[in-house]
Amino acid sequence: MSGSLSIVGLGPGSEAQVTPEATQVLMEATDIVGYGSYIDRLTPQRFVVLHRSGNGVELERAREALNLAVDGKKVALVTSGDPGVFAMAAAVFEAVDAQPKAWASVEIRILPGITALLAAAARVGAPIGNDFCAINLSDNLKPWALIEKRLRLAVEADFVIACYNPRSRARPDGFARVLTLLRQHTESKRIIAFARAVSTQHEQIKAILLEDCRPEMADMQTLVLIGNSATRMIEQNGKRWVYTPRLVGLRKSQ
Amino acid sequence: MSGSLSIVGLGPGSEAQVTPEATQVLMEATDIVGYGSYIDRLTPQRFVVLHRSGNGVELERAREALNLAVDGKKVALVTSGDPGVFAMAAAVFEAVDAQPKAWASVEIRILPGITALLAAAARVGAPIGNDFCAINLSDNLKPWALIEKRLRLAVEADFVIACYNPRSRARPDGFARVLTLLRQHTESKRIIAFARAVSTQHEQIKAILLEDCRPEMADMQTLVLIGNSATRMIEQNGKRWVYTPRLVGLRKSQ
Repeated sequence: MSGSLSIVGLGPGSEAQVTPEATQVLMEATDIVGYGSYIDRLTPQRFVVLHRSGNGVELERAREALNLAVDGKKVALVTSGDPGVFAMAAAVFEAVDAQPKAWASVEIRILPGITALLAAAARVGAPIGNDFCAINLSDNLKPWALIEKRLRLAVEADFVIACYNPRSRARPDGFARVLTLLRQHTESKRIIAFARAVSTQHEQIKAILLEDCRPEMADMQTLVLIGNSATRMIEQNGKRWVYTPRLVGLRKSQ
Repeated sequence: MSGSLSIVGLGPGSEAQVTPEATQVLMEATDIVGYGSYIDRLTPQRFVVLHRSGNGVELERAREALNLAVDGKKVALVTSGDPGVFAMAAAVFEAVDAQPKAWASVEIRILPGITALLAAAARVGAPIGNDFCAINLSDNLKPWALIEKRLRLAVEADFVIACYNPRSRARPDGFARVLTLLRQHTESKRIIAFARAVSTQHEQIKAILLEDCRPEMADMQTLVLIGNSATRMIEQNGKRWVYTPRLVGLRKSQ
């Protein structure tokens, strides 16, 4: 009899942000599959088998998890944040789609988690109080031209923009190009927030104006939030908060 | 001495998706403020004071919560989903921004929650496996023309699109106009998912083609997900899954 595969979101880092259903599934799993540093976040149960994999081998990891499930295991495939947002859920369905018969009997379930966008927004204030978009700045899986096109259209739509994976050692220049594009298409006082390693002991939050941004302010652990044209920065109780008003345009036109 | 205000996301409905930190804050609160139906979801502690408010009075509710906090209470302001996504966090900062001295000493904290987009995506499969946006279809706080402009640009950017608040008794026609716009700007086989009352006993999930969509398939409790041009529908283990591949264009061009 086939087993099951639960694709589990662990949230941004803190145990206090892991949902009870995720904790439950991890306790009941016979096998846990994941990128090494996500496995390291767990306090494993006594008899569980841990399967660590390297970064950047998502399809291989998805197949490994599906194969364990088809062998009757109760598998938890762990990801940071939410499994549906630039993480493992899509990789699992890509694998299933390519070999529909191989894993036809596996019971698949996805458990949502607090994605970096929500965790970062909560620390920054209320930056996504209006319509927003999320763009993965990694060009490993799509052409850079598409990223720039989406950014330009997102600015034109006046979305608040969340940038995932803004910069890495393998991709040092992309985020500099994003800042150049923003300087061409928005005003220099546009508000930008950098939220790094949110909810961990290495957390760093910074909210500044576009004119003061430098590419090296972002790294692989940073979520960058670009305000829309109405986003504001206020001081309260010794803190700097960023928020985007819910109301747009109606005051003037009505 | 001033108290504190925690703006707490309760997730989409199930207790199993409420974060431990949210549960902790609710246990320690002296006062809980919220829309009646969110208050009804709680199992209140013995001495807590509940402050129910009507729907659609967000600024008033924000001021009430801030006033209780400035009086020294430990206040939890509860919202469904995530407080930053079309919910109470922005309303609180709008209130603070309008009267900066009134609540200068209140300690404000935001606790993220599983927003409807993540909960719905998890039930549907992996629809937001690529870049996405979220648009609130309510025109209470912005002109309808801006909603249509954002939808058109989102389709042009080939974002997966999440529509919050697609339809209500007060706004019966907006979602019909969205379907008309989609029929003009995308193909008739575009995949659309309707996720209603996710994680509750009234949950309903439906994934169909644009050509089969009718406006009345959405209501106030529905999150509508519009696939991008590459979103696929597959059958596996008796279920219909929707996913959006991570890879775009590179196979052909490289």
